[in-house]
Amino acid sequence: MKLTMRLGPRSYDIILRRGALGRVGQLVNLDRSVLVVTDTGVPQQYLATVLAQCAHGVPVVLEQGEGTKSFATIEYLCATMLEHGFSRADAVLALGGGVVGDAAGFAAACYMRGIDFINCPTTSLAQVDSSIGGKTAVNLAGTKNIVGAFYQPRLVVADPDTLSTLPPRHVSNGLAEAVKAGLIGDAALFELFEKGDIEQNMEEILYRSLMVKKTIVEQDEHEHGCRAALNFGHTIGHAIEASRGLARHQLFHGECVALGTLPMLESRALRTRVRAVYKALGLPVRIRYDGDEIYSHLVHDKKAASGTITLVKVKQAGSYRLEKTPLHELRAMIGEGIG
Amino acid sequence: MKLTMRLGPRSYDIILRRGALGRVGQLVNLDRSVLVVTDTGVPQQYLATVLAQCAHGVPVVLEQGEGTKSFATIEYLCATMLEHGFSRADAVLALGGGVVGDAAGFAAACYMRGIDFINCPTTSLAQVDSSIGGKTAVNLAGTKNIVGAFYQPRLVVADPDTLSTLPPRHVSNGLAEAVKAGLIGDAALFELFEKGDIEQNMEEILYRSLMVKKTIVEQDEHEHGCRAALNFGHTIGHAIEASRGLARHQLFHGECVALGTLPMLESRALRTRVRAVYKALGLPVRIRYDGDEIYSHLVHDKKAASGTITLVKVKQAGSYRLEKTPLHELRAMIGEGIG
Repeated sequence: MKLTMRLGPRSYDIILRRGALGRVGQLVNLDRSVLVVTDTGVPQQYLATVLAQCAHGVPVVLEQGEGTKSFATIEYLCATMLEHGFSRADAVLALGGGVVGDAAGFAAACYMRGIDFINCPTTSLAQVDSSIGGKTAVNLAGTKNIVGAFYQPRLVVADPDTLSTLPPRHVSNGLAEAVKAGLIGDAALFELFEKGDIEQNMEEILYRSLMVKKTIVEQDEHEHGCRAALNFGHTIGHAIEASRGLARHQLFHGECVALGTLPMLESRALRTRVRAVYKALGLPVRIRYDGDEIYSHLVHDKKAASGTITLVKVKQAGSYRLEKTPLHELRAMIGEGIG
Repeated sequence: MKLTMRLGPRSYDIILRRGALGRVGQLVNLDRSVLVVTDTGVPQQYLATVLAQCAHGVPVVLEQGEGTKSFATIEYLCATMLEHGFSRADAVLALGGGVVGDAAGFAAACYMRGIDFINCPTTSLAQVDSSIGGKTAVNLAGTKNIVGAFYQPRLVVADPDTLSTLPPRHVSNGLAEAVKAGLIGDAALFELFEKGDIEQNMEEILYRSLMVKKTIVEQDEHEHGCRAALNFGHTIGHAIEASRGLARHQLFHGECVALGTLPMLESRALRTRVRAVYKALGLPVRIRYDGDEIYSHLVHDKKAASGTITLVKVKQAGSYRLEKTPLHELRAMIGEGIG
């Protein structure tokens, strides 16, 4: 399947096809210097598959984990390209999950003020969400994605076969973003999760999730308006992730987002249905936290402009509304936990 | 005088007016958090003038010099904004020369994936050239401007009064870029230099230089074509700057560019005229160098894509031509010095 993200001169194709990773070189020019960025969590066979298609592939294997999203990594990636004489006509290829894509994409955006970026997501999280839309970033002083660029890839190649080597918990982690996409923009996608048999419907789930995101990004590339809908569950989710997700509880991004969506559902019936879907996927539906700590993270959220924050609320699967809320009202809303 | 850079949604005004620094707040909203970035070379009175107009000004005084253009500075600027709770609605204001503008602009481009950038150039170099056009960058591993972003300011405020505190050598350094502008795009501007009485004609010189640059940037914002003309003198100039300018000879950017233009002039008569102008301005017209070393810098020039480099040549003041040259031919062209 092929989708085209239509953004004028920054338009690009998203190829979603089993086995596509072995045919990237047929889809985009790899006959040049290509920085192939991956991490220690990505099976080496995928790196070999990509490098075999590159005339001058320069592999970089980053340490797996959120800590890799740093200025130091961007400097290292740029210095590696410089050392290998990369020119404006060369490219960066990301092979991995969201961390790899975010860091490699930001390096591609900065090096010589922007060279081609090719994204080959290998996790469900990246395939349904982070690989498209052009958000690249690193973290700083414990704040996620606070520094980065809007920088669209030239091509996205999502090969669902790569999900076969992904641990089940990681697969579910990514599917949390697919559930999110269903809740804000595609009731039929959400119902696919209720029907179960995820494995069987995986390609349709990936495709429908990408369609929801593509439609929103095309309307609002730089997040001045409706793109905020994609942050459904992310405001509280990011705060949980910042405060505990990566520390004691070791919760993944999608797991935190899943938790973050629950207080944003405006119907008890829908909340029951969503909880059932999360349970079936093995996602968490309950967490206790220090409300003051979570609140302090919310106050520092980069979307918390001028004392208000835009919350995304869903009453019925398939549609959302944006609500500007004064920050101080959030403290009561988040309480001391979820569930 | 007001010029408008017309780049669609990224259009902005350039205000060129004596005393304008004291009225920035009337031209753009400073009633928000504003990171005011300057350096140790900028008179403190200008910083005070700007801060007095800011509701929540956060001053940052960087170390003067090219060494400041580093990843470390960008990280520091972003961390400072984060610490002070800057949101997407806040702004960065650069107050200084090209180094300050390049670093502050890149930080503005990256922080939260882009916040407002206001540029108040206080040197002749920045007022005629670097403050407009949207190129921001830092250096890496000895290579100038290898990492950065195309990021247009919201407003440029150039106050010629600030040039009164600039040492004469710095004034001439910036005027080298004005001579360049005349040579590639405005014969009358070049003739102003031949007539002498620079002080008297300063505002016209600044205005005409900005017009040349504006016209080119509007046609080719991201340097896919004719914008390369602005690199007239810069290919060899950058190489001189990288190899010796900042080390033994302590040459300034404009001085290196002036030297770099000479081998690109295609008429003996014009070369004589340009040398006379440079001499009158106190700019260098002769340098001995290690040709192999200069060549090795040229090979690493970020514009040296795929073994060729685009040179900008001028036969008659006011017009240029671009010439793709194989890198290896450059070695003979640069010889062992200029003049």
